Amino acid sequence: MAGNSFGQLFRITTFGESHGEAIGVIIDGCPSNIKVDIEFIQSELDKRKPGQSKITTQRKESDTAQILSGVFEGKTTGTPIALLIPNEDHRSKDYDHNKDIFRPSHADFTYQSKYGIRDYRGGGRSSARETAARVAAGAIAKLFLEQKGIEIFAHVSSAGTIDAPNIKIDSVKELVEIRESNIVRCADPATANEMIEFIDQVRKDGDTVGGKVSCIIKNCPVGLGEPVFDKLHADLGKAMLSINAVHGFDYGSGFAGSEMRGSEHNDLFVPPNGDKSVTTLTNYSGGIQGGISNGMDITFRVAFKPVATIMSNQQTVDKEGNAAEIKGKGRHDPCVVPRAVAIVEAMAALVIADHWLRNEAYK
Amino acid sequence: MAGNSFGQLFRITTFGESHGEAIGVIIDGCPSNIKVDIEFIQSELDKRKPGQSKITTQRKESDTAQILSGVFEGKTTGTPIALLIPNEDHRSKDYDHNKDIFRPSHADFTYQSKYGIRDYRGGGRSSARETAARVAAGAIAKLFLEQKGIEIFAHVSSAGTIDAPNIKIDSVKELVEIRESNIVRCADPATANEMIEFIDQVRKDGDTVGGKVSCIIKNCPVGLGEPVFDKLHADLGKAMLSINAVHGFDYGSGFAGSEMRGSEHNDLFVPPNGDKSVTTLTNYSGGIQGGISNGMDITFRVAFKPVATIMSNQQTVDKEGNAAEIKGKGRHDPCVVPRAVAIVEAMAALVIADHWLRNEAYK
Amino acid sequence: MAGNSFGQLFRITTFGESHGEAIGVIIDGCPSNIKVDIEFIQSELDKRKPGQSKITTQRKESDTAQILSGVFEGKTTGTPIALLIPNEDHRSKDYDHNKDIFRPSHADFTYQSKYGIRDYRGGGRSSARETAARVAAGAIAKLFLEQKGIEIFAHVSSAGTIDAPNIKIDSVKELVEIRESNIVRCADPATANEMIEFIDQVRKDGDTVGGKVSCIIKNCPVGLGEPVFDKLHADLGKAMLSINAVHGFDYGSGFAGSEMRGSEHNDLFVPPNGDKSVTTLTNYSGGIQGGISNGMDITFRVAFKPVATIMSNQQTVDKEGNAAEIKGKGRHDPCVVPRAVAIVEAMAALVIADHWLRNEAYK
Amino acid sequence: MAGNSFGQLFRITTFGESHGEAIGVIIDGCPSNIKVDIEFIQSELDKRKPGQSKITTQRKESDTAQILSGVFEGKTTGTPIALLIPNEDHRSKDYDHNKDIFRPSHADFTYQSKYGIRDYRGGGRSSARETAARVAAGAIAKLFLEQKGIEIFAHVSSAGTIDAPNIKIDSVKELVEIRESNIVRCADPATANEMIEFIDQVRKDGDTVGGKVSCIIKNCPVGLGEPVFDKLHADLGKAMLSINAVHGFDYGSGFAGSEMRGSEHNDLFVPPNGDKSVTTLTNYSGGIQGGISNGMDITFRVAFKPVATIMSNQQTVDKEGNAAEIKGKGRHDPCVVPRAVAIVEAMAALVIADHWLRNEAYK
Repeated sequence: MAGNSFGQLFRITTFGESHGEAIGVIIDGCPSNIKVDIEFIQSELDKRKPGQSKITTQRKESDTAQILSGVFEGKTTGTPIALLIPNEDHRSKDYDHNKDIFRPSHADFTYQSKYGIRDYRGGGRSSARETAARVAAGAIAKLFLEQKGIEIFAHVSSAGTIDAPNIKIDSVKELVEIRESNIVRCADPATANEMIEFIDQVRKDGDTVGGKVSCIIKNCPVGLGEPVFDKLHADLGKAMLSINAVHGFDYGSGFAGSEMRGSEHNDLFVPPNGDKSVTTLTNYSGGIQGGISNGMDITFRVAFKPVATIMSNQQTVDKEGNAAEIKGKGRHDPCVVPRAVAIVEAMAALVIADHWLRNEAYK
Repeated sequence: MAGNSFGQLFRITTFGESHGEAIGVIIDGCPSNIKVDIEFIQSELDKRKPGQSKITTQRKESDTAQILSGVFEGKTTGTPIALLIPNEDHRSKDYDHNKDIFRPSHADFTYQSKYGIRDYRGGGRSSARETAARVAAGAIAKLFLEQKGIEIFAHVSSAGTIDAPNIKIDSVKELVEIRESNIVRCADPATANEMIEFIDQVRKDGDTVGGKVSCIIKNCPVGLGEPVFDKLHADLGKAMLSINAVHGFDYGSGFAGSEMRGSEHNDLFVPPNGDKSVTTLTNYSGGIQGGISNGMDITFRVAFKPVATIMSNQQTVDKEGNAAEIKGKGRHDPCVVPRAVAIVEAMAALVIADHWLRNEAYK
Repeated sequence: MAGNSFGQLFRITTFGESHGEAIGVIIDGCPSNIKVDIEFIQSELDKRKPGQSKITTQRKESDTAQILSGVFEGKTTGTPIALLIPNEDHRSKDYDHNKDIFRPSHADFTYQSKYGIRDYRGGGRSSARETAARVAAGAIAKLFLEQKGIEIFAHVSSAGTIDAPNIKIDSVKELVEIRESNIVRCADPATANEMIEFIDQVRKDGDTVGGKVSCIIKNCPVGLGEPVFDKLHADLGKAMLSINAVHGFDYGSGFAGSEMRGSEHNDLFVPPNGDKSVTTLTNYSGGIQGGISNGMDITFRVAFKPVATIMSNQQTVDKEGNAAEIKGKGRHDPCVVPRAVAIVEAMAALVIADHWLRNEAYK
Repeated sequence: MAGNSFGQLFRITTFGESHGEAIGVIIDGCPSNIKVDIEFIQSELDKRKPGQSKITTQRKESDTAQILSGVFEGKTTGTPIALLIPNEDHRSKDYDHNKDIFRPSHADFTYQSKYGIRDYRGGGRSSARETAARVAAGAIAKLFLEQKGIEIFAHVSSAGTIDAPNIKIDSVKELVEIRESNIVRCADPATANEMIEFIDQVRKDGDTVGGKVSCIIKNCPVGLGEPVFDKLHADLGKAMLSINAVHGFDYGSGFAGSEMRGSEHNDLFVPPNGDKSVTTLTNYSGGIQGGISNGMDITFRVAFKPVATIMSNQQTVDKEGNAAEIKGKGRHDPCVVPRAVAIVEAMAALVIADHWLRNEAYK
């Protein structure tokens, strides 16, 4: 109940601070006999790791995951899988100036107030470094879902005010190729170039900017999601909102849907055709009706606020409540969304894996 | 794990179908010695109940809550509080035509597919009638929070494309008065009139429309919210997304924040002044930093899709997958947001009460 | 977390006080399409209800269960099943003398201290009346398990110092017949007579006595139970220890096993024979190895202390801590075990149903 | 829900296999600002570690715990505490013969059947090695409880048929000294000698024997325990029954109480005296009434079956179900109770810490 676990049946618990010994995750509830591909886990971590390009933080971490338990002769055994990622490049000195001062729009003030103590180095537990553990766990979830044919794809659909057009390609493999061919991770190459130029300018300004990640889940069977509180989109929403810097979530028609009329918004059912089951003509429902997946593509968006650490002077207060001034040091992202793509996919995989098992239990 | 419970320490479990014997809720974890004001519970239910005005469904339900347990001589005893709301006006006949046909953008198809059986009368468990139980439980949560000085206020901030301006009034009491003086429950009287006219026209068209509810939580102390998955806004988000027809949630700067720069978005800390603790100059954080409340007003928005039941013919399929046609019968809302205000407040109260207790445990 | 729920996937939440409006239970997680036999539920409740015979309390309650939700056209729908048992014969007056005085070895003192308030009528929430709700829920669990061929049988194996010999009969049907043919519910008719005479004498003495219930679960498949904390016997143990007046639990060889040698205690495996899977020569493991069922009969014992309400004067203290004297009034059991048999079976059914679903999820 | 977590608010999750890379535990929910004494953690682990004396296994493991997170400058920060114990002396070769054969009364058969795969080296996840992680976590719980003045003491009260007399000493410090002065960990020196001689003879016989551990919790305040399922003794019982080889649990009067009369068994209340609160004349309730602590000493017993690995030939079956023969190899305990004392204390500390926080939440 202290909040460091997520999921019911496919359940993860993460631990670790930004500049401590290590971060890591325990997965309790991964079914047995899933082949574990350590290289795949690493490739997922590499998409999130710092130091990838000029538009991400220059902090260097190899982010190498070690498997401590739960895997035997290359397969899961049904027992807890412990994944450990040692911390390497912890220039804690960069954070000495934070010891007694609260950075604006960071969690320094709230952690100090709540706990009466905090590991101030690099944000400690509140650092987005924690999400590396999620990505490692999400990779295991993906390996599980792959067996079921479920595919998850996220990309940067907005950086600041630059929006990508809707994706028209249906092949996840192809989409990943396009996305990974540009450093901002947008599936539309033309928009990607615009975004990169924009973010680089923001970086040069010593400033930061927000953005959005859009996600699609393909081949999810009908029936995942539990009424009435654990609706599939409610759990997806919680998962996404638990990611650092996320300020908004919507699915299907989303916020735009609230301006539509029912006659336009309703997704008319279409009889089965060939090997396809019942489908809908449109998909404003985003693949979820009454909180339960209906077999159509699940679609959602995640809105990220701008990174709080900026390279200019800001007013703030110190631990005693006195006025103070602070300026960002260290190495930070001008925009988190390129690295957040892997986190969004990981959390989506964890939610779907969890609801898969929950649905299985009652079949 | 079957999804009908919400909260960890202040925990509710709802039950009941739209046209069954009764709906209700068990609250497990309400502290003892809270005065229970049955009239207050009823007044909350009255805000959600059907048949209130020309822009809500004409279905009549008195929605009277009975207390079966957990209250002794007018006070909570710390044991489970059972609240029962008998169903009265269940014209089940209205739904016979739904027995074998799936209504578009309803949960008929997904429930039937998931469970192999469904109470098709009025949506059964998937009906928004379930939310009456949440409102009753939320009323108890509000009585608990009132003792702590915490106030919650929601209102209709958009109906379709009609948006209300930002609220400038600080007194919740005054805001409630304004809101309750108009049938659309908007805190801006001029916009309210526009909205009512608009929704009434939609109703006459046999159509429906979506909208948004905005909520503010005042006087929440610093420290509520548990890192890293049970961030306060993540639990608020899940709570809101679990409400029928909700397609989106954001808090603080929200989706708009994803277009902003850090230099603009950061909330600069201001030293304590008089009896006020540390505050921030702006509140793009929406009162929550690192998932933990920072003492500022908590603000969020909830986007509702248009009601799926419309009064015109729609293509669909039947249980065997054959093409079919359906037309809405019965009595339905042209727009849910006026009645949803009470539900949003109830769910917010439940989240805050739960996190209050969670924070208390570790103090 | 306030303790009124049990089970993870087949989860119950009970509510209600001894002398309030009603008691009841919500079952969240019963699979759909289970036929619900209301007469069977009632017959289970009848085994627990008061006023059955001269050796049980003379308090009269018909204990009639009403189904409020989750069942449609005679079958479960997968949504929460609410069962309500109204309280009838609440002679609250009998308890006025308890208002300010703590009955020895009851929960009056601890409830008052913990909550600062208590419904003192008949023990309120701490009354064994709460277990009627468990029996009703257990009946639904039994209907679910019946489909899987799993049978549960409990009987009174000791009353005070009178012990029944080990059961030699293999047919549960036959055992139930023998047990229900005597009012003490012992499966050995000769011992039953002795027990009845003994308990009746205790009753005449105005005194009470403890006893033991033994239980056997037949046809439980291999694989139920989750390592390492949710071992099948650990959950059975918790279930039994949560029943009022229970002071001990053991399974398989139990306490006696702690005096044995490994060479004697080990259950040697026997190759499959005909349609039988692997078995063991002896069953000191009580059908559970490493916390997981091994396909053999699951066996355990539950020890009940004597009922605390006796018909003689006892020293105690009042709410202010002053010395006081109290004498049992009202109508009470001289020995609870005859009525506890139904409760033990119900809790066992709930544990097995829960672990069945948990095992199913990961298959 | 996969069973590797224990506790609600003070919650642990263990991981690791006997012969894998490491075992460990995450504590989620330890309050902040608790001083962490790594030497104390180690001293607790030393009481459980193998190779202590001639009556324990000769397997050597230094069992050194590393803290990976959650502790900053010697104090807990309120974030998850990860404790890692690397595996050292894993003579996996000793277990090659177990690969395809099921050891009698071990978990080989049930794990293989449940998961379709198992780490057969040394019992893998089912090995009692997992309990080292519990002891490390329990040490943190003890440091927390120490601040509250709560003391926990367990010792070996029986080895086979040799029973120790009841303890008459009131000082936990003194009791620990006596207990640690003998290798069997019995608080009665005379009995200890008998036990040691007896166990040593059993060992020479190539056999094993069971035993009992008794535990007392002193200075627990009134009010811990949640009705009705999470009674304090129900959670203690589950905790103890989850320990490897445990076959029975009772508290207060326990199994013996089931043979007593109410007039003898009732604990009469005694008015407060000096700085003492209300007490009881006797303590058959074992410090718990209605599932809630009453301020008296909490007392319980735990029964352990004999270790399954013996040094003689035994009949069994192999993975294909064919008859086979097996003989214990490796280094095993003739009797687990001397090492189990630390585990019982650890689990007791975890239960009390958890219920302390749960009670705190609702105050």
